[in-house]
Amino acid sequence: MKTAILSVGTEILFGQIVNTNTVYLSQQLNLLGFDVMYHYTVGDNTSRLKEMIEYIFHDCDLILTTGGLGPTQDDLTKETICEAMGDVLVENAEELAYLKSQWKGDREMPSNNIKQAWFPSRATILKNPIGTAPGFALENNGKMVISMPGPPREMTRMFENEVKPLLEKMQDSVIHYRTIRTSGIGESDIEMMVLDLIEQQTDPTIAPYAKDTGTQIRVASKRKTLEEAKAAVDEMVDVLAERMKEYVYSTDDEELVDVVAKKLIDRNLTIASAESCTAGLFASTLAEVPGISQALQRAFVTYSNESKVQELGVKPETLEKYGAVSVQTAEEMATGLYNKSGADICVSVTGIAGPDGGSDEKPVGMVCFGFNYNSAISGGDGSRVVKTIEMRRKDYGRNYNRKFASHRMLLNVNRILDDKELIK
Amino acid sequence: MKTAILSVGTEILFGQIVNTNTVYLSQQLNLLGFDVMYHYTVGDNTSRLKEMIEYIFHDCDLILTTGGLGPTQDDLTKETICEAMGDVLVENAEELAYLKSQWKGDREMPSNNIKQAWFPSRATILKNPIGTAPGFALENNGKMVISMPGPPREMTRMFENEVKPLLEKMQDSVIHYRTIRTSGIGESDIEMMVLDLIEQQTDPTIAPYAKDTGTQIRVASKRKTLEEAKAAVDEMVDVLAERMKEYVYSTDDEELVDVVAKKLIDRNLTIASAESCTAGLFASTLAEVPGISQALQRAFVTYSNESKVQELGVKPETLEKYGAVSVQTAEEMATGLYNKSGADICVSVTGIAGPDGGSDEKPVGMVCFGFNYNSAISGGDGSRVVKTIEMRRKDYGRNYNRKFASHRMLLNVNRILDDKELIK
Repeated sequence: MKTAILSVGTEILFGQIVNTNTVYLSQQLNLLGFDVMYHYTVGDNTSRLKEMIEYIFHDCDLILTTGGLGPTQDDLTKETICEAMGDVLVENAEELAYLKSQWKGDREMPSNNIKQAWFPSRATILKNPIGTAPGFALENNGKMVISMPGPPREMTRMFENEVKPLLEKMQDSVIHYRTIRTSGIGESDIEMMVLDLIEQQTDPTIAPYAKDTGTQIRVASKRKTLEEAKAAVDEMVDVLAERMKEYVYSTDDEELVDVVAKKLIDRNLTIASAESCTAGLFASTLAEVPGISQALQRAFVTYSNESKVQELGVKPETLEKYGAVSVQTAEEMATGLYNKSGADICVSVTGIAGPDGGSDEKPVGMVCFGFNYNSAISGGDGSRVVKTIEMRRKDYGRNYNRKFASHRMLLNVNRILDDKELIK
Repeated sequence: MKTAILSVGTEILFGQIVNTNTVYLSQQLNLLGFDVMYHYTVGDNTSRLKEMIEYIFHDCDLILTTGGLGPTQDDLTKETICEAMGDVLVENAEELAYLKSQWKGDREMPSNNIKQAWFPSRATILKNPIGTAPGFALENNGKMVISMPGPPREMTRMFENEVKPLLEKMQDSVIHYRTIRTSGIGESDIEMMVLDLIEQQTDPTIAPYAKDTGTQIRVASKRKTLEEAKAAVDEMVDVLAERMKEYVYSTDDEELVDVVAKKLIDRNLTIASAESCTAGLFASTLAEVPGISQALQRAFVTYSNESKVQELGVKPETLEKYGAVSVQTAEEMATGLYNKSGADICVSVTGIAGPDGGSDEKPVGMVCFGFNYNSAISGGDGSRVVKTIEMRRKDYGRNYNRKFASHRMLLNVNRILDDKELIK
């Protein structure tokens, strides 16, 4: 069923709040097999709201609205929808009694709250036990509006308990999807690897999209039963993952940091970092994952040359000869860290984050990495292996450069854990 | 001017990404004096996109679009807008040369990238030095579309550098605003301090709003000339700042980290951190500021007890008696760091980030800080001063707890630099 989500509220048009309601409803509606075709936002304005509802119905059969159901003067959604759907408001005795019961003791109910007990005569009322504004569903000539309050806590609860059962009755198919995540390769290259499948797609559908840190591929299927949809998606995910194998880090939409942290924790391995340009961003990102204290042993932010020598045992001659940003320094940082900390995997990074400090030979955006790890973790003979990596790439701005460097460290730690060759 | 924001992308309709572009553009457009009347989102679908553009223009004169400018098959925004605006695409030699220059060495440009060098014949091209998809502005019969890429990093940069100057030329009154930033005090308390001014406001307007890390107050004026608007805003900012003095860290919307970094750099002071629960977040946040390498000397992420003893000289008895999360440990971390690093200001943090690890005595969300600094920086006699702080507060979730702790460290470093009493 062609569906639109309509958010009502001037504060959204001012950019004062992030519209998470629409994200939540989009996910839920898609999972229930509704085709979300449009999102709309309009301010608290009667004529524009009415016009928009009429316009949306030229192409859609269902509108879910959020917001504008409150007691204040500018909350006019209910009145407007009622008019647009050719109905009239009537007082609902049950709702009035409930509303009054919410104002106990010395507090008297403000008179403008009474309008919250008025509903379109043909509406199905949707309960809101954690707020004062109930929602409603209203049908007219095969078109339906479902109207919910704006506060996310009230809206999600109402959706789960009241709206979902209503919607499930309206559907005869289900959608299921999974998302494959890749990194270390561009969107165009990924698309080329699976272009024939994309061109042939009917169901499941295959949609690649680029994120800052890699390309994701969403595989979705719409079938009669969840079982059929799942089977179709799983089969296609296997085919795609096999093609892109080298670059896939999750076939279930997991964050890279979660993938890495889980492996470290499950395999009882420890990690440490020595960071110059990222200045703790790698360690801090890993620390976002609960339970990581078991694996993340320590980290050194060695910004100054002095600290690289004192804390990590980098040789002053190395700094002198090759500079602080060099593969040689990166290697000595990783090795010094490995010797000092005894962690299973030690990573180091030194680079030119910018905007200043670059040269022709060492431009802003150049980052060098060192990896020193116990090769026993990938079935080696227990001796250490050292890899150092130098990368030159475009300068995307200081903080993106730092974020990218931290992500690249995570990516290569993941590849060490999977016994894959490191990305250079 | 009546304006709409149109987001293009099926992934938005699936609820896979939070549409932060629209929030950013809404804020910016409102500040520039444009009336944002509607937000729309449509999928990567030519006919629906075309129809929507035509519909929006019945009520609006300007549309800003984001997304759908990439190289893949489903990115059709440019072609569709071109058609809707009655223009034709032509190859732009300059953009083609630039595009090709981005693919150096052994990597050849995938053929599907070439379409990114085609533009509507009448379009003004908007540069995108940090991505492959430029934007464009296209006018027809007094209606204008401005089209930008979807990745927020590219979009915000393009808006700031290319779109804003274009929009400013279209306005006949000027809005000027400044934002005062406060921290260490709640929104209601701040509001009480300036309530009479808020109630009297006409122009300039005064709008307080709460952020995670403090309350901001935006003062805006809309006048015929920039000079008039500036004078009105400056006068009101001075009055407000005087009232809230103790809690103001910027009267020009600066980030706290920028304020702190600037003072450190200007005064030629050095700083070091010893971080447990924040795991490098403080150092990494400071490192966002260009030029900080002069001041940020080093940092230690001492997650394990062992590393606290080895790197910072925390006494095993202290850990035994008071625990790793205690003011005593925090103090020894800061003092160990001060002795070892010789930095002018040394800060430490140890806390329970959660979700596990809390107890009745030491709940999740409890964080202890240590500050050890050279009192000469605030005109003292050169002897060191040690302050330790213990804070218990609500548990807002692991990563918010960490972010809050890092922010509190910055806030108190700023207060040390201003010779104010630390916030506990």
